[in-house]
Amino acid sequence: MADMDKPEHVRVLEEWMKSYKPEELFDAAGQLAPELADLAPSGHRRMSDNPHANGGLLLKDLKLPDFRSYAVPTPSPGTATTEATRVQGAFLRDVMKLNLDSRNFRLFSPDENNSNRWQDVLDVTTRCYTAEIYPDDDHLSPDGRVMEVLSEHQCQGWLEGYLLTGRHGFFSCYEAFIHIIDSMFNQHAKWLKVCHEIPWRRSIASLNYLLSSHVWRQDHNGFSHQDPGFIDHVVNKKSEVIRVYLPPDANCLLSVTDHCLRSRNYVNVIVAGKQPAPVWLTMDQAIEHCTAGLGIWEWASNDKGSDPDVVMACCGDVPTLETLAAVDILRRHVPELKIRVINVVDLMKLQPSSEHPHGLSDRDFDVLFTKDKPIIFAFHGYPWLIHRLTYRRTNHHNLHVRGYKEEGTTTTPFDMAVRNDLDRFHLVADVIDRLPQLTSRAAYAKQAIRNKLIEHQQYIYAHGDDMPEITSWRWGRQEQPAARSTSTEGDNV
Amino acid sequence: MADMDKPEHVRVLEEWMKSYKPEELFDAAGQLAPELADLAPSGHRRMSDNPHANGGLLLKDLKLPDFRSYAVPTPSPGTATTEATRVQGAFLRDVMKLNLDSRNFRLFSPDENNSNRWQDVLDVTTRCYTAEIYPDDDHLSPDGRVMEVLSEHQCQGWLEGYLLTGRHGFFSCYEAFIHIIDSMFNQHAKWLKVCHEIPWRRSIASLNYLLSSHVWRQDHNGFSHQDPGFIDHVVNKKSEVIRVYLPPDANCLLSVTDHCLRSRNYVNVIVAGKQPAPVWLTMDQAIEHCTAGLGIWEWASNDKGSDPDVVMACCGDVPTLETLAAVDILRRHVPELKIRVINVVDLMKLQPSSEHPHGLSDRDFDVLFTKDKPIIFAFHGYPWLIHRLTYRRTNHHNLHVRGYKEEGTTTTPFDMAVRNDLDRFHLVADVIDRLPQLTSRAAYAKQAIRNKLIEHQQYIYAHGDDMPEITSWRWGRQEQPAARSTSTEGDNV
Repeated sequence: MADMDKPEHVRVLEEWMKSYKPEELFDAAGQLAPELADLAPSGHRRMSDNPHANGGLLLKDLKLPDFRSYAVPTPSPGTATTEATRVQGAFLRDVMKLNLDSRNFRLFSPDENNSNRWQDVLDVTTRCYTAEIYPDDDHLSPDGRVMEVLSEHQCQGWLEGYLLTGRHGFFSCYEAFIHIIDSMFNQHAKWLKVCHEIPWRRSIASLNYLLSSHVWRQDHNGFSHQDPGFIDHVVNKKSEVIRVYLPPDANCLLSVTDHCLRSRNYVNVIVAGKQPAPVWLTMDQAIEHCTAGLGIWEWASNDKGSDPDVVMACCGDVPTLETLAAVDILRRHVPELKIRVINVVDLMKLQPSSEHPHGLSDRDFDVLFTKDKPIIFAFHGYPWLIHRLTYRRTNHHNLHVRGYKEEGTTTTPFDMAVRNDLDRFHLVADVIDRLPQLTSRAAYAKQAIRNKLIEHQQYIYAHGDDMPEITSWRWGRQEQPAARSTSTEGDNV
Repeated sequence: MADMDKPEHVRVLEEWMKSYKPEELFDAAGQLAPELADLAPSGHRRMSDNPHANGGLLLKDLKLPDFRSYAVPTPSPGTATTEATRVQGAFLRDVMKLNLDSRNFRLFSPDENNSNRWQDVLDVTTRCYTAEIYPDDDHLSPDGRVMEVLSEHQCQGWLEGYLLTGRHGFFSCYEAFIHIIDSMFNQHAKWLKVCHEIPWRRSIASLNYLLSSHVWRQDHNGFSHQDPGFIDHVVNKKSEVIRVYLPPDANCLLSVTDHCLRSRNYVNVIVAGKQPAPVWLTMDQAIEHCTAGLGIWEWASNDKGSDPDVVMACCGDVPTLETLAAVDILRRHVPELKIRVINVVDLMKLQPSSEHPHGLSDRDFDVLFTKDKPIIFAFHGYPWLIHRLTYRRTNHHNLHVRGYKEEGTTTTPFDMAVRNDLDRFHLVADVIDRLPQLTSRAAYAKQAIRNKLIEHQQYIYAHGDDMPEITSWRWGRQEQPAARSTSTEGDNV
């Protein structure tokens, strides 16, 4: 605009532009000369359609072993105990093995591969290390396919490049520290969204995250290592790109992992614990449950053939454990109470189908969660995420969510749940508070719960560990043996 | 536990422990010998109560000029146009000047100080640079108090250290890229939360962010530079620590900035645009509005003395502009419609008072937002954040929020709003859709809106810029002159 006031600048500009001799480059109609236009490459030689840039052209499916053969035997719910991510690690070891020749699969981790229980993969490959290697170095070699470096940024950058050039990978990270790559995730998710709209972009493998060492089992790291909010960040991105899974046990984790390795063009976030935890479902049940994404756990519910009095929903491994323990307490003390237990694996099921392709229809949601019964929802992450996903549902005003609310200190695993009101006792209290028919018994029951929580505080202060009745609780066991020896007051809870 | 099976290990352990000669260190009762206990420092010589570690002991209040003297004169709403952050920059220049001798104030930015319109500060100090300086370097010197480096991490780390050692600062950043320090913010917020619980920790200055170059005015950076989700991340942290402000104009930004510089122990996030934008409030009005945190804009409302038909709420500078433009359209075409306009500066006002100390009581919320009228809420960020903050409010089921939903490309500023349904025309359509009394006129009005949006698309394709009737729109102007010349169809909108 300034040039309008300075005609001498226009003359200089014109002179400069004419120095390129446009009359040699364009015809009278302004069309580029055909012999020049022909200089540009065509087909796959075009920069963005070149296999180096459009890596999906090179993508080969992974060879996958049958994940069902890694199943943890589960004679009845909760009898088996295992470290879920270690079972996943055995599956990934064999994925690695089957694809070593194809050289198209790598694992990435900020020095947490073994901490997150993926050490079995080191039986078939090593960590990648190209500097000098000493005799007592642990599983290092230049052609290793486990990429470990204490930089979440570098892991993320490596994996993005690896996927964009047509390969497959999996990133395992401590849940709290994955926020380090929030901004990089943003750009990858935006890239995938735009590629969806460009017909000649070929599909690439999904970006898979395992978030472990999670908020509920980081008690020794006090308050510093708790932040389950990466999924809040992820669900801000386009629904066609993002998927979030919180498998409740090892068998579900296997099913979800297999699904994610086969998927394309997504960001898959899996949250799963690495500490010993119960296995609830057989492999067949797990496949059904994960394929549906959420569902009633019939073996834990007693409302079949009638309306439930209360829906107890859970999402995440520790919330599932605490919910089932709460159901157990309620069953023993208020056996006539009709409880429906719903577990959620695929978080996006909670959103309306208009908002996310995985979303339940309102009709299905109403049938599952009822239109008018209280829902006590125990959630792995920040509780308001559940509200944000469900605020349009019919029964939302009856939905009461417990989750992480930024409380914690160096304490016991169960105390982390207690401090955030997610433990079995608080969940029982939540049910009592919302069921007017329990009024007559409510005062005594709530006092018993209060006493139990005081007992818990005193016990962990004296012993530095959780009460045996907490750690040894199992679903469906008639009597809690440890409870008899340590519980003196409040034993009607 | 393993040692229980290996008594020889117990013996080795005992030998090792005894080599420290505990009998010389402790008395028979196990008490540490007094002469040894006395070796530990006391008072401020204790490590964590030392002024080097408990920086609040050294904190001095900033000398602040009267922010009111930087006010943009506003004879009537929207008549003045200014770059809000440039006005803030003039205030910060004088804050810098008044505290140069105290050497306790610095600005931090990832090479965006001038881009975010804070260049005036370079009149009184320079950028800090300790390497060799050449004659044509721009405002560099070793004692400069503007810390610029293209690393959000380094800016954040510098500022945290500066605050923790008893000084004051302000971090300006492009909104989309502040996610780079999500994880660092987490740790600072957790630190502040824990310090709140420790009586001898002294207060430190708040960590102040200006997020500018924001989602609605990054049209030339297409889809890559849009992410208003840092505030979603921030509000996951403890409510006693975090504050979020979205001043609608330059005068409100001045008031908020003064408040943040005086505050202690918070993380203050301010979102404000740097592009020319209308000033709505006089300084006195701005002070009242920002002190209240939200309120009815009487001059834009016409429901006084009766119930409104619709509440049009807005939060953020561009949503405020689009809301007022929508109100203007509605006023001209449906003058009998009673519209209440509410602007929100302090986002935390929306939460229940039980959730955040700034939260409105339910009674106050019901009075403002009504118990039963439709609320069309135009929001700067992701729309579901508003739902998450308000899901417990009486009238939440009537709340309809527009905000950023991850749409965009390299386009015009107004088209960014259109692509995300936040523009004035979509807002008018939202009102029509929710007011059954408009049914008879609704079909024609919605067709006119549709035509206007088609006209917009054609115009920006042909001209590469927004329609003059959009760019030249002013509140309260009787007729839109530009509209006459360019609008052929749909002129009943």
